[in-house]
Amino acid sequence: MTASRGRLIGVGTGPGDPELLTLKAVRAIGEADVIAHFLKRGRAGNARTIVAPHWRQEAIELPLAYPVTTEMDRHGEDYKTQIGAFFDDAAARIAIHLDAGRSVVVLSEGDPFFYGSYMHVHARLAPHYQTEVVPGITSLSGCWSQAGVPLMQGDDIFTVLPGTLEVSVLAARLAETDSAVIMKVGRNLPKIRQALVAAGKMDGAIYVERGTMADAVVQRLAERDDAPAPYFSQVLVPGWKDRP
Amino acid sequence: MTASRGRLIGVGTGPGDPELLTLKAVRAIGEADVIAHFLKRGRAGNARTIVAPHWRQEAIELPLAYPVTTEMDRHGEDYKTQIGAFFDDAAARIAIHLDAGRSVVVLSEGDPFFYGSYMHVHARLAPHYQTEVVPGITSLSGCWSQAGVPLMQGDDIFTVLPGTLEVSVLAARLAETDSAVIMKVGRNLPKIRQALVAAGKMDGAIYVERGTMADAVVQRLAERDDAPAPYFSQVLVPGWKDRP
Ligand SMILES: C[S@@+](CC[C@H](N)C(=O)[O-])C[C@H]1O[C@@H](n2cnc3c(N)ncnc32)[C@H](O)[C@@H]1O
Ligand SMILES: C[S@@+](CC[C@H](N)C(=O)[O-])C[C@H]1O[C@@H](n2cnc3c(N)ncnc32)[C@H](O)[C@@H]1O
Repeated sequence: MTASRGRLIGVGTGPGDPELLTLKAVRAIGEADVIAHFLKRGRAGNARTIVAPHWRQEAIELPLAYPVTTEMDRHGEDYKTQIGAFFDDAAARIAIHLDAGRSVVVLSEGDPFFYGSYMHVHARLAPHYQTEVVPGITSLSGCWSQAGVPLMQGDDIFTVLPGTLEVSVLAARLAETDSAVIMKVGRNLPKIRQALVAAGKMDGAIYVERGTMADAVVQRLAERDDAPAPYFSQVLVPGWKDRP
Repeated sequence: MTASRGRLIGVGTGPGDPELLTLKAVRAIGEADVIAHFLKRGRAGNARTIVAPHWRQEAIELPLAYPVTTEMDRHGEDYKTQIGAFFDDAAARIAIHLDAGRSVVVLSEGDPFFYGSYMHVHARLAPHYQTEVVPGITSLSGCWSQAGVPLMQGDDIFTVLPGTLEVSVLAARLAETDSAVIMKVGRNLPKIRQALVAAGKMDGAIYVERGTMADAVVQRLAERDDAPAPYFSQVLVPGWKDRP
């Protein structure tokens, strides 16, 4: 019975530039029976656009639309229940195809396991089905390559911090690391700035918006105002002082 | 004069699986006049093997062989001087081709700016020549995809730690982060183990050797002995407790 079941493949589509797909991703997409992708209200599915030229005409498209949660407290129980139910439902819809013997590719912006939604589907299905993860270029690599700024070398410590953390936590972690990237910028710019100043690391900080996309923006954070940042943005904090 | 000068392109070749090259890397390699790559004694140039099928027959190969430094103290002044001189020389050899108007691709395992040697050449040449960085799949993404283990989600903090750090520093940083990857394992396994135990994070730790290569090894760190690890190895420390 297991033999006739389909395979689940999480495929990273990279940070935005369609040429940053891997050969392996192109092959997996071209061979898939079903292409599933997550959709967020208010922004087009970027991953879908990137892979559209590569999928088979006969492939079945399975859009997975997030519930509207923007008005909810992300740490509240309501949010957790609703988002948990969404992933349960997404997994169930994918499982129907797997049980019918179809291979299902789930698209994931950047790298699937790097803060990606795919992992929530993976965790639910991996115990029951054959799975594979095709890594993608992370937004980290996309953004520091776009900026042309290397962050870490040698024995440097590198830390990824969500901008949603409290300012005291951000400042403490920034002080202890050599280099960092702050993700989830959104409305957190004033807080991020405060933490960087407290840690003495405001000077080198760089703001990158829509890294590797056609309309990418790179600027010193000091020159960026505090207006809310779009979803695709992050702050680079270079270490790399003592180079050979 | 500037217009006739060649372009420098740092190209990430990914963690080992030749299919993890990006479309952009394949194109850059196929168009390059010169393909430069770093060589370490005692191991074949992995990046060179991955890209060999993609380069033009007429392309000039420029191997850059590291000086033998294994017997030297990596923090000593001698090491710094010698490795600095090596990068100066590598940059000068590349510059000759750039001045002759040739495009030069410098191969870099994984992602060029993620602890890669390429950045030392980039730092020397970027002020004088047109440069571009083509990001690659990092060993991080390669290894956690190979293991099928997601490390971070939501507001988790993620930290990259070189195994060369002191055990007290490793333990302190591990205690403060949700998830981590420890690179540069080599002879540091006993120390890494000690730090993980001190931080209470030994249980979930996973050892990955030659991630995404044909002979990859994935095992619980608890089941790995303390024999020195090969160059291509790292330890994954998953966070990700409170999932929706
Ligand atoms: C839920 S995480 C997903 C990360 C993705 N899986 C990856 O590998 O990069 C979303 C965050 O990624 C960052 N991000 C993703 N793509 C980006 C891009 N092209 N430019 C800047 N930031 C990006 C933003 O900071 C955003 O808050
Ligand atoms: C100088 S760093 C270069 C990292 C590379 N630029 C990248 O993007 O991953 C070398 C370290 O990368 C890690 N590494 C590189 N490739 C690996 C692989 N295929 N499997 C496991 N670890 C790897 C090892 O921990 C090694 O000590």
